[in-house]
Amino acid sequence: MSWQAYSQDIGQAARNASVALRNVSPARKTQGVLAIARALRSQSAAILAANAKDIEAAPGFGLNSAAIDRLRLSTDRIEAMARAVEEVAALPDPVGAVIDGSIRPNGLQVQRIRVPLGVVLFIYESRPNVTTDAAALCLKSGNAVILRGGKEAMHSNLCLGEIVQGAVAEAGLPPALVQIVNTPAREVVGELLRLNTLIDVVIPRGGKSLIERVMSEATMPVIKHYDGVCHVYIDASADLDMASRILENSKCQRTGVCNAAECVLVHTAIADKFLPRLGEIMSRRGLEVRGCSKTCSLLPEAQAAQENDYRTEYLDMIISCKVVDSLEQAIGHIEMYGSHHTDCIITDDYSAAQQFVQEVDSAAVMVNASTRFNDGGELGLGAEIGISTDKFHARGPCGLTELTSYKYVVRGAGQIRG
Amino acid sequence: MSWQAYSQDIGQAARNASVALRNVSPARKTQGVLAIARALRSQSAAILAANAKDIEAAPGFGLNSAAIDRLRLSTDRIEAMARAVEEVAALPDPVGAVIDGSIRPNGLQVQRIRVPLGVVLFIYESRPNVTTDAAALCLKSGNAVILRGGKEAMHSNLCLGEIVQGAVAEAGLPPALVQIVNTPAREVVGELLRLNTLIDVVIPRGGKSLIERVMSEATMPVIKHYDGVCHVYIDASADLDMASRILENSKCQRTGVCNAAECVLVHTAIADKFLPRLGEIMSRRGLEVRGCSKTCSLLPEAQAAQENDYRTEYLDMIISCKVVDSLEQAIGHIEMYGSHHTDCIITDDYSAAQQFVQEVDSAAVMVNASTRFNDGGELGLGAEIGISTDKFHARGPCGLTELTSYKYVVRGAGQIRG
Repeated sequence: MSWQAYSQDIGQAARNASVALRNVSPARKTQGVLAIARALRSQSAAILAANAKDIEAAPGFGLNSAAIDRLRLSTDRIEAMARAVEEVAALPDPVGAVIDGSIRPNGLQVQRIRVPLGVVLFIYESRPNVTTDAAALCLKSGNAVILRGGKEAMHSNLCLGEIVQGAVAEAGLPPALVQIVNTPAREVVGELLRLNTLIDVVIPRGGKSLIERVMSEATMPVIKHYDGVCHVYIDASADLDMASRILENSKCQRTGVCNAAECVLVHTAIADKFLPRLGEIMSRRGLEVRGCSKTCSLLPEAQAAQENDYRTEYLDMIISCKVVDSLEQAIGHIEMYGSHHTDCIITDDYSAAQQFVQEVDSAAVMVNASTRFNDGGELGLGAEIGISTDKFHARGPCGLTELTSYKYVVRGAGQIRG
Repeated sequence: MSWQAYSQDIGQAARNASVALRNVSPARKTQGVLAIARALRSQSAAILAANAKDIEAAPGFGLNSAAIDRLRLSTDRIEAMARAVEEVAALPDPVGAVIDGSIRPNGLQVQRIRVPLGVVLFIYESRPNVTTDAAALCLKSGNAVILRGGKEAMHSNLCLGEIVQGAVAEAGLPPALVQIVNTPAREVVGELLRLNTLIDVVIPRGGKSLIERVMSEATMPVIKHYDGVCHVYIDASADLDMASRILENSKCQRTGVCNAAECVLVHTAIADKFLPRLGEIMSRRGLEVRGCSKTCSLLPEAQAAQENDYRTEYLDMIISCKVVDSLEQAIGHIEMYGSHHTDCIITDDYSAAQQFVQEVDSAAVMVNASTRFNDGGELGLGAEIGISTDKFHARGPCGLTELTSYKYVVRGAGQIRG
């Protein structure tokens, strides 16, 4: 079969399954999600066996030991996957909710009702738990999903896919609600990205080159999970203990994530007091600082920053630093160099906080709280399929609601338009 | 200047103006919109003079007399444009609204706040009033807009653009909030569609070829205003008087619009009673019917439909007709041949209505009401910049709210992530 025919078959099966799902009760969807959790536990031996093949092949894909550890499953990790799926099952069902409504002067009753997006194509390069998280989120939100994981996790994902399909079928739902692309061929991605009459949205989650490929080839809408050049701005009025604590958490708690801080902006009025604290974090955490000339004069351990440093998502134990003359200069810097992902102000000044909140146009604007809180679980959405860096449709964490659209339902008694 | 440099300048000016607008009070935006209305009235002579040049050139663009009439402005039409702008000014400001919020267990206060999309590129082929409607809608919703109208309205649009910019400046706002592309060169559209770091969304409104070009070239999200293959389904239990009235209104009130009916589905149990009524509408309104074999046997005036008729948006005094055996067959037909725009059931049966509402996945699903009500004004949104046929971001009429995104604002007291 050609890649085109293979992709078309997958897309059509997903579309058919998504249409069938319109008639399924919320309880049945939840049963399907819970069946996935049960199947993960009862078939953990098969999952571990499949995962062992991926682990064995991993060095051949050039994975280092940290990456191999992320890929590795264990009984405990499978139990955690099952629990995460159960948490999705317990979330409120977004589908069918009445968003708003009105009765028009002519008596028409107008409602906006949440509906699934339809068919989701999810392309990712992550740990195997993402496979089951995505399956649970899409099923609970009434969508069919086509899952395309990384080649390094192919055995694990195919095994998980079979288990998920079995569970979905056991709950009386069409197995094609969750399909795994069973080939690493790059051509299949290109073919799937052409199917805009069958696939409603594509969600790429992974490295920049993956996301850029999807952006350039997709013929359907994309929810991007792009770069996070996140800032912590220490205002003149900041509590410096709080500032140190939040900066350290934002930068160092996990460095490889999109909501980690990549740049600290320090108001000049407190730079001489704050930068030694940054120096203390540097030595204690092994943090490298790349700073402006004023930073370097006050913090000799810092290296000189190039302009491009301020645009860089290090995803590493490195941070850029700039001393600014004013709140306005901080906001201007974030506008020019940031990626509109997550930006934070540390301040005791209410009006400075309000101005920052008003003028910084990022998916999440934090006041006196770590950038690491821009996360579906932390913000109360439950599990997330990604964090959108777009302003369109979904911004920030994408949970169940962000996997829905809406339709107008208009009930009348014979009204016509005059 | 190259088209690329020209487009880049427009895009950058729009971006700068949209950033400046973040700091502007709702009252100032409303003043700007009201200033547009005043300026339209006070400068109507200049508008009429510019419009006269378009009217003179119109036959050279191949416009027929109906199209020329739509292009022509008059004192009354300018007054109507001013009033439409005033209606936008009076709508609630969507920006800054708190969509939802929560206090997390760790004390973080989380809010989702409406924010403008940023910069809107609006490409249209419509009457000059669309220029001022779009300017008012974008300004009121806090967006900068780049307007690219049709070449046949170029003189009118440029004059309107100058008047709008003058009014915006008079209200103390950056004139680049509303820019008119002052050349008919197609290359400029291509260049603008590349500027995804400056332009947040493109809204094409016009013929299919325009929309398809924008879809294939745009590098930013698109809100499409695509085809409307809308259905009226006459259920077995329908009140046939109501059915005739709604069908006639849906098909014949205005034939050239996207929410006009293009296909009627008739339940076989009432086909022999209903089709003569369709015949009556045919003769009274000059309606052409293209029907299935059963339609043709019951309604000899009908022509035989080809399969492609059921996919056709006639935008004319023509309708396709099919007799169906069941509600399920009607829903299946709509799924297969429809465009998910607006679909209607006429029924006295509550459970049939519920099944139709549940299973038909269209931007608007009507029960016992004309398809023509899928319209921003009729559904209570106020003015609209278009009707989205997408399921992504905005579905159905796009008013002020649909021109916004949101951001998370998180206020803490030093919280860090554990």
